[in-house]
Amino acid sequence: MKSNLKSWIPVNKNSDFPIQNLPFGIFSPPKEVIAKHDKAKDILPRVGVAIGDYVLDLLELKKTGVFNSLNFDTNAFAKSTLNDFIFLGKKTTNAVRARISKLLEERNPELRDDEKTRAKVLHKMSEVEMLLPLEIKDYTDFYSSMEHARNVGMMFRDPANALLPNWKHLPVGYHGRSSSIVVSGTNFHRPKGQMLQAAIVPAAAVGGLPLPPPPATVVFGPSKQLDFELEMAFVIGKETKLGESVTTKNAEEYIFGMMLFNDWSARDIQSWEYVPLGPFLGKNFCSSLSPWVVTMDALESFRIAGPKQEPEVLPYLQYSGNKNYDINLEVLINDTPVSKSNFKYMYWNICQQLAHHTVNGCNIRIGDLMASGTISGPTPESFGSMLELTWKGTKPIKMSDGSARKFMNDNDTVIMRGFSEKDGVRIGFGEVKGKVLPAI
Amino acid sequence: MKSNLKSWIPVNKNSDFPIQNLPFGIFSPPKEVIAKHDKAKDILPRVGVAIGDYVLDLLELKKTGVFNSLNFDTNAFAKSTLNDFIFLGKKTTNAVRARISKLLEERNPELRDDEKTRAKVLHKMSEVEMLLPLEIKDYTDFYSSMEHARNVGMMFRDPANALLPNWKHLPVGYHGRSSSIVVSGTNFHRPKGQMLQAAIVPAAAVGGLPLPPPPATVVFGPSKQLDFELEMAFVIGKETKLGESVTTKNAEEYIFGMMLFNDWSARDIQSWEYVPLGPFLGKNFCSSLSPWVVTMDALESFRIAGPKQEPEVLPYLQYSGNKNYDINLEVLINDTPVSKSNFKYMYWNICQQLAHHTVNGCNIRIGDLMASGTISGPTPESFGSMLELTWKGTKPIKMSDGSARKFMNDNDTVIMRGFSEKDGVRIGFGEVKGKVLPAI
Repeated sequence: MKSNLKSWIPVNKNSDFPIQNLPFGIFSPPKEVIAKHDKAKDILPRVGVAIGDYVLDLLELKKTGVFNSLNFDTNAFAKSTLNDFIFLGKKTTNAVRARISKLLEERNPELRDDEKTRAKVLHKMSEVEMLLPLEIKDYTDFYSSMEHARNVGMMFRDPANALLPNWKHLPVGYHGRSSSIVVSGTNFHRPKGQMLQAAIVPAAAVGGLPLPPPPATVVFGPSKQLDFELEMAFVIGKETKLGESVTTKNAEEYIFGMMLFNDWSARDIQSWEYVPLGPFLGKNFCSSLSPWVVTMDALESFRIAGPKQEPEVLPYLQYSGNKNYDINLEVLINDTPVSKSNFKYMYWNICQQLAHHTVNGCNIRIGDLMASGTISGPTPESFGSMLELTWKGTKPIKMSDGSARKFMNDNDTVIMRGFSEKDGVRIGFGEVKGKVLPAI
Repeated sequence: MKSNLKSWIPVNKNSDFPIQNLPFGIFSPPKEVIAKHDKAKDILPRVGVAIGDYVLDLLELKKTGVFNSLNFDTNAFAKSTLNDFIFLGKKTTNAVRARISKLLEERNPELRDDEKTRAKVLHKMSEVEMLLPLEIKDYTDFYSSMEHARNVGMMFRDPANALLPNWKHLPVGYHGRSSSIVVSGTNFHRPKGQMLQAAIVPAAAVGGLPLPPPPATVVFGPSKQLDFELEMAFVIGKETKLGESVTTKNAEEYIFGMMLFNDWSARDIQSWEYVPLGPFLGKNFCSSLSPWVVTMDALESFRIAGPKQEPEVLPYLQYSGNKNYDINLEVLINDTPVSKSNFKYMYWNICQQLAHHTVNGCNIRIGDLMASGTISGPTPESFGSMLELTWKGTKPIKMSDGSARKFMNDNDTVIMRGFSEKDGVRIGFGEVKGKVLPAI
């Protein structure tokens, strides 16, 4: 990472999007901006790159010929998802990013001094609509934060044996719902469902293992324990065929970039339904994704060692080098910060997750999304869900307006942010935001 | 169903595909057939309809103008999946099916007496390649056979309390993997993965609830307990938006048709990984789907009452009318029949499954696949998996060649077939077939 690289576009010191980042997303430009110089039919969703407070419009930019020497199908910029662009392969997408970096570099006059083109290709970020960046194929959620797994185990099982026997042997994961993954800013209604009548979920029914007592009453209604889960997700950038496996060594070739992810969860629905086949309606009503896909290249400088894994893992899960990433994460409910965590706390890294996922021959596709599971750190302030932050609702959190929360109230907005910082350069993810509307 | 309706195409009495069925599928015609009358570029996958031993080629047929009066976009026939055709809506797809029925009816000379067109639009089924009929969006697997759930509970938990407390209150389901669903005839390699060293999975680790003892040894290798699961699946034919729910009353509007489904399972991998978040690598290495989508209209005459549900279910799961279907099912390993079951045994019907799936606002899309879970009947011969048929491997099954099976051997082929029969009319599903290749 060239920390002294600067763009001729002014980038605020606290911006997530300096010239070193250049994440990709899908957006709709403001109608009036496009109408100035083109036909209305052209207001298609398209690929953009974030720079400071602007979005660089790659569909418009390609018309200037700046990508001509790269020799790829620029129709990929005229799509409503990044899948076709990602399909071009890292060699091409890296070259596109490098070309854009060169174009935006402060001493390059190409675009800087071409006012007419600038007006076409740069939109104010505040004036565009960001869309879901991916056609998400299969969505997998892992459970890779030891602190989170341990907290859940302590709350609902045996504090002395909080982790389940398999937890340190494999990155536990499960398949989730793709259809209900929405882009940041999409609000959703509080889910309704079956749950046990007890206001707080009976301990025996949540942690997973002790046989729950026969339920006194099964009731139906809006969830009373709606929660967020602070997660990050990566998107697959290269396919495999059925039967093939990805190793921890080559896993990075298959990972295009990362996003923030809020895996909304209804704890009361989940706890009643999930034995023995896992979470279903307690999770699949909505998950929120941040709009900018930060490439793994942009995160290269923020590699960090992961925690020591004991017992030693099986050979297919062993790895060398730094595979964790130092990414600061925070969660706010309305305006109140409620959690500060870090992606570096993950026990299982993304290369291990992908190696495990494919060791049985399961094939992956471009657009598959793989999320981390709730990211909790070692201290109570760094827990990644209300379940843990309020310790099953026993320690409500004070909001800045004086109210308190055990779980989400109607009309609460949850915002998650993330960024890495080093040598004065901040590589950020923007935010993922969602508001809880009352049940229908 | 007009049981006396006949086609001018000869249909064997034991054929699954009389004129009353007319299921849709996707196929590639034989190159030499098409080359006779068209350019090679035209050998695209396309929509077909099964009739007797033939496939009616709707892409070729549309050129004759038979669908002109129906006023829809016949480009849907030139696709590699049925999704665009299904998207046209039941009003149109029913009209297409009715038009085809009329065309094939024995007294209709239109096509019957037009030898030249017949040669273009009818292919021998044995000469075409059937493809995966759907772009499968989200795949959900239910667990809706009480006999199956009870067998698993008896084997691995408490015979006196075999069903878990939630089982009779909601149709338990979980999300599965779409990428690895393959069409009948696709072979796959035995999956490798982590498992406990014991040859037979320790009882405590499988059933889900009692805390498993810490494992003595975790090992890696090819699964030794590879199993089939006899299932049926339905495909969603109409979308909902996030937040909307489908009721049991209107669920049928959203269901286009059904297929046979083999949810291959590696019991040893599954039992070690699945607590607390459900099956993952034990299932996602391969699932096999039959190529012909039998419409719900073709199954109309085979409705039957489902089992009485006690305790009474919550209002959103209550329904009226016959929502189960009388579909005979059988499983063969190589040439040996090993199970005879029936789809009518399902405790939870497909309308209840869909109402439950969406009661929390989870949105559904055209191409979503929802499978039944293993279909076991009340007698030992009707169990739908080797796990149950051999009772955890304690009662090996004799094959016709004298060998015995606890689970699948390498190079075993599993075939599942299904059909309904009434008044001399047989509405069948063809078969779903898959062969286990040795681990890579």
